[in-house]
Amino acid sequence: MTKTVAIAGVSGYAGAEILRLLLSHPEYVAGNLQLGSVTGNSNAGNTLGSLLPHIPELAHKTVEPTSVSILEGYDVVFMCLPHGHSMELAQQLPDSTVVIDCAADFRLKSQEEWDRYYADSHDYAGSWPYGLPELPGNRTQLRGAHRIAVPGCFPTGASLSLYPAVQAGIVEPDFAVTSITGVSGAGKKASVSMLGAETIGSVKAYGVGGVHRHVPEIIQNLEQVSSGKSVSVSFTPVLAPMTRGILTVASAPLNGAHTEEDVRRVYAEAYADESCVYLLPAGLQPQTKSVAGANVCQVQVAVDERAGRLLVTAAIDNLTKGTAGAAIQCMNLALDFQETAGLPLIGLAP
Amino acid sequence: MTKTVAIAGVSGYAGAEILRLLLSHPEYVAGNLQLGSVTGNSNAGNTLGSLLPHIPELAHKTVEPTSVSILEGYDVVFMCLPHGHSMELAQQLPDSTVVIDCAADFRLKSQEEWDRYYADSHDYAGSWPYGLPELPGNRTQLRGAHRIAVPGCFPTGASLSLYPAVQAGIVEPDFAVTSITGVSGAGKKASVSMLGAETIGSVKAYGVGGVHRHVPEIIQNLEQVSSGKSVSVSFTPVLAPMTRGILTVASAPLNGAHTEEDVRRVYAEAYADESCVYLLPAGLQPQTKSVAGANVCQVQVAVDERAGRLLVTAAIDNLTKGTAGAAIQCMNLALDFQETAGLPLIGLAP
Amino acid sequence: MTKTVAIAGVSGYAGAEILRLLLSHPEYVAGNLQLGSVTGNSNAGNTLGSLLPHIPELAHKTVEPTSVSILEGYDVVFMCLPHGHSMELAQQLPDSTVVIDCAADFRLKSQEEWDRYYADSHDYAGSWPYGLPELPGNRTQLRGAHRIAVPGCFPTGASLSLYPAVQAGIVEPDFAVTSITGVSGAGKKASVSMLGAETIGSVKAYGVGGVHRHVPEIIQNLEQVSSGKSVSVSFTPVLAPMTRGILTVASAPLNGAHTEEDVRRVYAEAYADESCVYLLPAGLQPQTKSVAGANVCQVQVAVDERAGRLLVTAAIDNLTKGTAGAAIQCMNLALDFQETAGLPLIGLAP
Amino acid sequence: MTKTVAIAGVSGYAGAEILRLLLSHPEYVAGNLQLGSVTGNSNAGNTLGSLLPHIPELAHKTVEPTSVSILEGYDVVFMCLPHGHSMELAQQLPDSTVVIDCAADFRLKSQEEWDRYYADSHDYAGSWPYGLPELPGNRTQLRGAHRIAVPGCFPTGASLSLYPAVQAGIVEPDFAVTSITGVSGAGKKASVSMLGAETIGSVKAYGVGGVHRHVPEIIQNLEQVSSGKSVSVSFTPVLAPMTRGILTVASAPLNGAHTEEDVRRVYAEAYADESCVYLLPAGLQPQTKSVAGANVCQVQVAVDERAGRLLVTAAIDNLTKGTAGAAIQCMNLALDFQETAGLPLIGLAP
Repeated sequence: MTKTVAIAGVSGYAGAEILRLLLSHPEYVAGNLQLGSVTGNSNAGNTLGSLLPHIPELAHKTVEPTSVSILEGYDVVFMCLPHGHSMELAQQLPDSTVVIDCAADFRLKSQEEWDRYYADSHDYAGSWPYGLPELPGNRTQLRGAHRIAVPGCFPTGASLSLYPAVQAGIVEPDFAVTSITGVSGAGKKASVSMLGAETIGSVKAYGVGGVHRHVPEIIQNLEQVSSGKSVSVSFTPVLAPMTRGILTVASAPLNGAHTEEDVRRVYAEAYADESCVYLLPAGLQPQTKSVAGANVCQVQVAVDERAGRLLVTAAIDNLTKGTAGAAIQCMNLALDFQETAGLPLIGLAP
Repeated sequence: MTKTVAIAGVSGYAGAEILRLLLSHPEYVAGNLQLGSVTGNSNAGNTLGSLLPHIPELAHKTVEPTSVSILEGYDVVFMCLPHGHSMELAQQLPDSTVVIDCAADFRLKSQEEWDRYYADSHDYAGSWPYGLPELPGNRTQLRGAHRIAVPGCFPTGASLSLYPAVQAGIVEPDFAVTSITGVSGAGKKASVSMLGAETIGSVKAYGVGGVHRHVPEIIQNLEQVSSGKSVSVSFTPVLAPMTRGILTVASAPLNGAHTEEDVRRVYAEAYADESCVYLLPAGLQPQTKSVAGANVCQVQVAVDERAGRLLVTAAIDNLTKGTAGAAIQCMNLALDFQETAGLPLIGLAP
Repeated sequence: MTKTVAIAGVSGYAGAEILRLLLSHPEYVAGNLQLGSVTGNSNAGNTLGSLLPHIPELAHKTVEPTSVSILEGYDVVFMCLPHGHSMELAQQLPDSTVVIDCAADFRLKSQEEWDRYYADSHDYAGSWPYGLPELPGNRTQLRGAHRIAVPGCFPTGASLSLYPAVQAGIVEPDFAVTSITGVSGAGKKASVSMLGAETIGSVKAYGVGGVHRHVPEIIQNLEQVSSGKSVSVSFTPVLAPMTRGILTVASAPLNGAHTEEDVRRVYAEAYADESCVYLLPAGLQPQTKSVAGANVCQVQVAVDERAGRLLVTAAIDNLTKGTAGAAIQCMNLALDFQETAGLPLIGLAP
Repeated sequence: MTKTVAIAGVSGYAGAEILRLLLSHPEYVAGNLQLGSVTGNSNAGNTLGSLLPHIPELAHKTVEPTSVSILEGYDVVFMCLPHGHSMELAQQLPDSTVVIDCAADFRLKSQEEWDRYYADSHDYAGSWPYGLPELPGNRTQLRGAHRIAVPGCFPTGASLSLYPAVQAGIVEPDFAVTSITGVSGAGKKASVSMLGAETIGSVKAYGVGGVHRHVPEIIQNLEQVSSGKSVSVSFTPVLAPMTRGILTVASAPLNGAHTEEDVRRVYAEAYADESCVYLLPAGLQPQTKSVAGANVCQVQVAVDERAGRLLVTAAIDNLTKGTAGAAIQCMNLALDFQETAGLPLIGLAP
């Protein structure tokens, strides 16, 4: 039976990436998925031709306004809206609709954490099943779900980098995480600081001092597998002159004499059955280019013997595995399609 | 019946891109295409894991040496070798093999032109059906062909930019063409001048003065539709700090009072039935990002009334529509698959 | 006697670059030039610390509002304002003030041309001595001048590329010019199309079809040396993913059998006494990196024998020789300092 | 009295940057410094025109071979040679020559450390005064010195980021350091992995697991101010798609309830008298663009209260403050010039 799909916020980078993936999804090609409304705010009334010139096949499709009346008739609704906007829409959509939200609105399980990081914007609205199927316990909740919160891009990279070590108990859960991201993570809104002239040729940290809103989400994920141990994460995002990609560099003190082989075994086991996480062979380091446009996380582990620390590096595309690809992966689980259907597993390199 | 495929020169950018496209080709997924040998020269004996880290699913596949004995058993052989190397191999492969050559060896129909531009490297070896199906007269020759010469990346952009105007006779065929290319066009070989430190943050022309080897190929293509008129092309390639993409900026004197609407009509008609060439709506300019990784050429036309010239701009990905995508498109024609099967038509933007 | 200097529009890229150059100007270091007010519009009241973090020594200097009362007391006023704004200010500043305008307001000598390209914004306000000292006839007018119009960045590159050939009469003055520019040329104002995510990894033309406002300025400069011959310029700007730099690629039909040596002689003679234009030795091509931050134009000539065309390539930094460096060079002439004082002639490479 | 200067290894990035700085050094302009031989290895016999096209004023200067007989006559010799090469040369140069070495050969005070990280290449040769004047105790040793070891680029960023905290004893000296560097750090030698096509659009870590040769140098510097406490540094370098710049992101557990204001006071005091280190005002983050081409380190501090860690971020240009600028700063100290003479303190932004 054909399922109809709408995308709210199609002209942003996440929405456009969902559209790109959807149009080559085998169920779409087979006619089992059908594209309905694509909506926007300031862009409503325009056609996609000038907004998304990389998708000429939909150049004449018109962007509708984002509203309940337009979205409520669809089987699947992807929401790619500014933080805080999904809340209001979501509660008015039918329970039978599969709603997949790419914002932070329904990610945090703790109201206290929400209030600490988001209080200035919106009240806590509860949490939904969390769309990182690779995190132990999550996949079953996502199968057939009608509400799914897609993870933040940084938490995806950090959680996939660290959860196996936390779960195995081989580190003191006191993490220093530096995540170097491409500029598309800041979204498609006009600003001086994100101009090409400001970002090309330069690297800069931001949100330094643990104030980034993704901190509680990373902690929540890691505490899900820490057997009750509390986890500390000092997280620093860094902006690099590329459009897509996040390289996570994470470290923590080893809590014993674990060798690199020990660690490799832990990670190999954790990801043995995962199609979208790839533990690199020894000697190779992940690079963001390898996963550009792909729904893949490439991971590598190392042991710094002198410092007694575990080092994990991981590459994702912030727009694909970091957002839109994860959203499609979640839809596949929700609709009982093959989990990686429509998801490129090869990056666009070079 | 399953067709087996080999790729000679798999570790270079063209070979790797063919592999990337092949692995998601619907006939491959359906089992009708099967990957056999991938070969290399200095990389023979290594596995693909470190050479093509963006393709983890083939990390353990070994690169074999490039030789007739290894290649001769396959139904389709893609050759991505340095110029001059395909010649020797090609004549030893069975006539029944579909050989698709990405080098210049079999592109030029005129021995005189070959001798003028390539005499220092190799003797003329004749020409094969030319793999630009969009050029009038070519597609029929490619259907079922067993030998195909894939066009150069610059000639693809320049020919698709200009042939409709030449064919319609609306310009004096005296072209000034500037083509701005990404750095992957120089191939994957170590050199100081192509280092990141030399190319990032800088733009530079090369082969200035009409000496680039793609000149005769562009002229050959345009003279194919010029009704006997001789064509002049002053071609200047420019290197820009991006990995992929060619933007062609081409102009010529209009030979009469043709308006932009007239010109648009000519191009719209020329490309009405083409899936891989997209004439942009008025007001939009092609950008290379829109076609990254896609087998598409986006074209725009304009008339400079004051100067009395036609201006055409066109974007392709040098590795996809400019090489590897074209090679797959040619294979599809040769094997009677759907022409665009396995070819992304949406670019990886942003 | 100490001269006092003000910069109107200091937080934009041109204003900031003038400030950078001024602070290491030997007359500033010696105390003969003194910095007074720096002004802005929306930034008035802020300190330079956050606006120009690359100039820490002035972090605590406050931006004043741009107004006649603030600017009128200085010996030298640099105006880096949006087009149309200098006009009003200029006529209210004392005649004795040296006013150096980086906008287009006073560049065009022909009201007809102004009306054709700028009518929608402001009425014609006349022209000032034109700040390209290298163009024959200009330098004398700039010495001791009190009003100077700094050239546009594209006209600087195009004029220095072409005037020697026009003056010598070796080409038909029917030019095709493609100028590839870095993104700082678009200025420091928020916009979606100039975001890093939109510009990194992509090349795109704009103003295609001869509609760019720099067209009449290029023609004006070349007709200044054409002995009455009318000049045609088909000009296409292209945006490339770098912050600074313009590479001009210009060509025209040779009007006789001129060899590359002939052409080289013409250019060598034209630039023999110029410190800021450098004709490259045969075999080298200009690259924008070589002139980054420098007040230099590097030029190369070639002859395309087959096409019968002259090819000229030239690199400048759009913010230095293309704007702010030229402004300082003009100030040096106006104040009778050494012409290149305070002007770097070595680019920041790599 | 005029001092003569030679640069060994002039065609590499460090050597060329020393040359760029030297040519605008006020003592050079005044005739007190004079450029003698510039030497190279494979480039000997060539002129600088094609090697360093950004320095046209020396286009006709010939590169001589690197040898004792050529270098021994100069008052100052800068050595920019591959690691291990300076050793042999240095001991043959007169004691009266000021030798400033940009390689690692004479940086490490501990033979044990040398043997651990460099044993495979060369035997330990002892240590020279260490050219980081800002590190307590160093400046006096550099004044009038005849042998100076210029620090590595990563140690410069890491040491300036962390020494005040170590000296003040406000952290547990157990550091996690991630340093994001531009590609010029890899030098000007042909390699596939450093091609533009491999580095543009991608971020990648290397030397992961504490194996980078700069580790012992960072530890040595920090232990110089640790009052005998042993220091641990887990260091991860990351390659980003820009030519120049290092952003250091460093953290360590605070050893008490130190507020951001406390920390700021410590750093403000440490750098109060330093011209080349700039503690940014609260609220600003360093970016590499701000220090491009400048001999400056911009530093910012933050406290992650939740994680109980100090976070320090710092930007330098790896070729300027990270190498060549430091070398000039050291020469100034050795020759008793003003310490910052000839050193730009403003970065080339944007």
